[in-house]
Amino acid sequence: MKKNVIVGQSGGPTAVINASLYGVVYEALNREDSFGTVYGMINGIEGFLQDKIMDMKPLDASGELELIKTTPGSYLGSCRYKLPEDLNDAVYPLLFRKFSDYQIGYFFYIGGNDSMDTVSKLSRYAEQIHSDIRFIGIPKTIDNDLVLTDHTPGFGSAAKYVASTVREIVTDASVYDNKKSVTIVEIMGRHAGWLTAASALARRYKGDNPLLIYLPETSFSQDEFLKQAEQALKTTPNLVVCISEGIHTADGTFICEFASDVSVDTFGHKMLTGSGKYLENLVKEKLGVKVRSIELNVCQRCSSAMLSATDLKEAIASGAYGVKSALDGETGKMIAFKRIAETPYTITYIPEDVNVICNQEKAVPSEWITKDGCDVTDAFIRYATPLVQGEVTIPKENGIPKFAYRR
Amino acid sequence: MKKNVIVGQSGGPTAVINASLYGVVYEALNREDSFGTVYGMINGIEGFLQDKIMDMKPLDASGELELIKTTPGSYLGSCRYKLPEDLNDAVYPLLFRKFSDYQIGYFFYIGGNDSMDTVSKLSRYAEQIHSDIRFIGIPKTIDNDLVLTDHTPGFGSAAKYVASTVREIVTDASVYDNKKSVTIVEIMGRHAGWLTAASALARRYKGDNPLLIYLPETSFSQDEFLKQAEQALKTTPNLVVCISEGIHTADGTFICEFASDVSVDTFGHKMLTGSGKYLENLVKEKLGVKVRSIELNVCQRCSSAMLSATDLKEAIASGAYGVKSALDGETGKMIAFKRIAETPYTITYIPEDVNVICNQEKAVPSEWITKDGCDVTDAFIRYATPLVQGEVTIPKENGIPKFAYRR
Repeated sequence: MKKNVIVGQSGGPTAVINASLYGVVYEALNREDSFGTVYGMINGIEGFLQDKIMDMKPLDASGELELIKTTPGSYLGSCRYKLPEDLNDAVYPLLFRKFSDYQIGYFFYIGGNDSMDTVSKLSRYAEQIHSDIRFIGIPKTIDNDLVLTDHTPGFGSAAKYVASTVREIVTDASVYDNKKSVTIVEIMGRHAGWLTAASALARRYKGDNPLLIYLPETSFSQDEFLKQAEQALKTTPNLVVCISEGIHTADGTFICEFASDVSVDTFGHKMLTGSGKYLENLVKEKLGVKVRSIELNVCQRCSSAMLSATDLKEAIASGAYGVKSALDGETGKMIAFKRIAETPYTITYIPEDVNVICNQEKAVPSEWITKDGCDVTDAFIRYATPLVQGEVTIPKENGIPKFAYRR
Repeated sequence: MKKNVIVGQSGGPTAVINASLYGVVYEALNREDSFGTVYGMINGIEGFLQDKIMDMKPLDASGELELIKTTPGSYLGSCRYKLPEDLNDAVYPLLFRKFSDYQIGYFFYIGGNDSMDTVSKLSRYAEQIHSDIRFIGIPKTIDNDLVLTDHTPGFGSAAKYVASTVREIVTDASVYDNKKSVTIVEIMGRHAGWLTAASALARRYKGDNPLLIYLPETSFSQDEFLKQAEQALKTTPNLVVCISEGIHTADGTFICEFASDVSVDTFGHKMLTGSGKYLENLVKEKLGVKVRSIELNVCQRCSSAMLSATDLKEAIASGAYGVKSALDGETGKMIAFKRIAETPYTITYIPEDVNVICNQEKAVPSEWITKDGCDVTDAFIRYATPLVQGEVTIPKENGIPKFAYRR
């Protein structure tokens, strides 16, 4: 008897997490000989525990599946549910009883670190009870911080959004070029600076903005920053600075914590302010120039306007490759990307041990950060450039992007 | 002898202010019989006073002019220089001596209210001294707040950006649909709510997010807002609210002022916080649900990702029409848009008295705002929908939008 497939999404959404969903579903539906029903779990493993599942096949016939491919966000909904460390916890037999009820033979989970942790635990429990259900992780994160993989789906489109938007901000900032100004752009990335580093792709020539780029991989000194900004303003009156939200001092204090120490709202509560807002005030106070800060916020992960065709293609392929790997008998694996050539840029997909991947974070290598801590090297540019290539046309309705959504 | 042309840009940039520049320059260069040199003034009238001008013709030959058409920001640079009210001020003879030195016969100024004020004063001074230089204003503002015109170039693309981005944010906000949450989106517009109203275009069906929309044309009550939000959360667990940055109480106090009253940074200075951030804290305190705020910031005016083809076409046309009007003998006029048909949407361009336009602001009509003050009517939707139609492909280099810039 053919076993059924179930696929879920977990963690924060990206612009292409649905492309990976498309990849899994499309591939599974096209292998009717191997699989039974293809289910989606609503709100990840948490929703599955409440039997919130849906049959994905009708989406193919209605054309919705095609639309899902270029829809940002998690079509199936997400969760931030962490399975217990103790494999003797009662939730495991409960889950596997449900797997059995739905005749699940193949489990696909699209997500980042925490989602890979779920895949790891389920596959280890399956081994313990001699279940033959196969558990495969499909990577997803704009943070690009998973180990054992060249990069992750979601990063390329987010990087393209960041680089394009920073270039637009540079253009906007330069209109009053007769007056000195500083624009601080705060970019997502609490612990890994990959996305902030991508702002370097915005430069059109040597010495172009953003002139200063600060990642959380190095420690941030407010005095050094002020000196570097003052120096940069000498050659570039409209200075643009890009910072990771997670920049911190040598002792580990986040820069944003300096602001929230003293900033209190009408209710006497701390107003949580970003690092960018704090540095805006610092520059105003210490350098006395016009300054503004811009938080790129959730648009980094949900904008469909700057989808990278490369990223989209790879997100779909990693989903489809996951299905093939499961059929080949793999379990407890995440589909990783291996760059086998630079020119032309070529990627292959390999299943890697999810137990090694989960709960680890890959930082930007220190040799890709300049010695003065305020820029990235050409090696990073060479690494990131292929990932933002190619344009994707999003279907529109009445002038606005058309997206799939669950009714 | 053929007289020369000079064109400048002023005020905050938009995504299509350069398209209007393109329209003026392209049209003037193509009428060699009528015009001499076509100059651009760098940083508006302020730069012109320092003789900062450039010959625009070489840009046509190099292909740069074509690239300018889809480049956001002000290619020529901008200024916020206000000419003195007193036409007897010494700056006027100085300016007209310079016009004479450069043999200027035609002056085009692309901008909003303040720029139209410049055109008004220069044309009135010209009349006073019997100068035959013709002064024409080309409208530009994302705020859409100029009178005597159906709308302004720049609004359509900004509205398309706002509607698209809010739809993406709605998609992003709905991934954890099992938990109640409020997302507050702060949109530009200190006095006029046109751009915030455009967020209504994000809705895909009746009852879709954004469920609540607040414009500065009505007064904002914190208690009413909390009641309306609480009510909306009953049907829509992931509520998205759009507000103008300029929302204010009945007595005229900006909502953002409530926060900055008490929020102080490490230097003892007020931290200027937006209305969105303030309401985020209010909702957290009073409704106790998960809440976040997003400030769309400068991307609203400088994003090239969501250019409206309609807006781009009209921006170019208004520049070109300005040139034709000047040749026809018009002066002291702004090129206004008149909607002569709804189906199909049809616009004509007419020169309107710049003296009536400058220093006035057009608000969203009260009949286009619902009685409860938290939404716009279908009449607004019918008005705005044609303005966001059509896609524009931006040239790319290495995966990132390619823009023109002055070397």
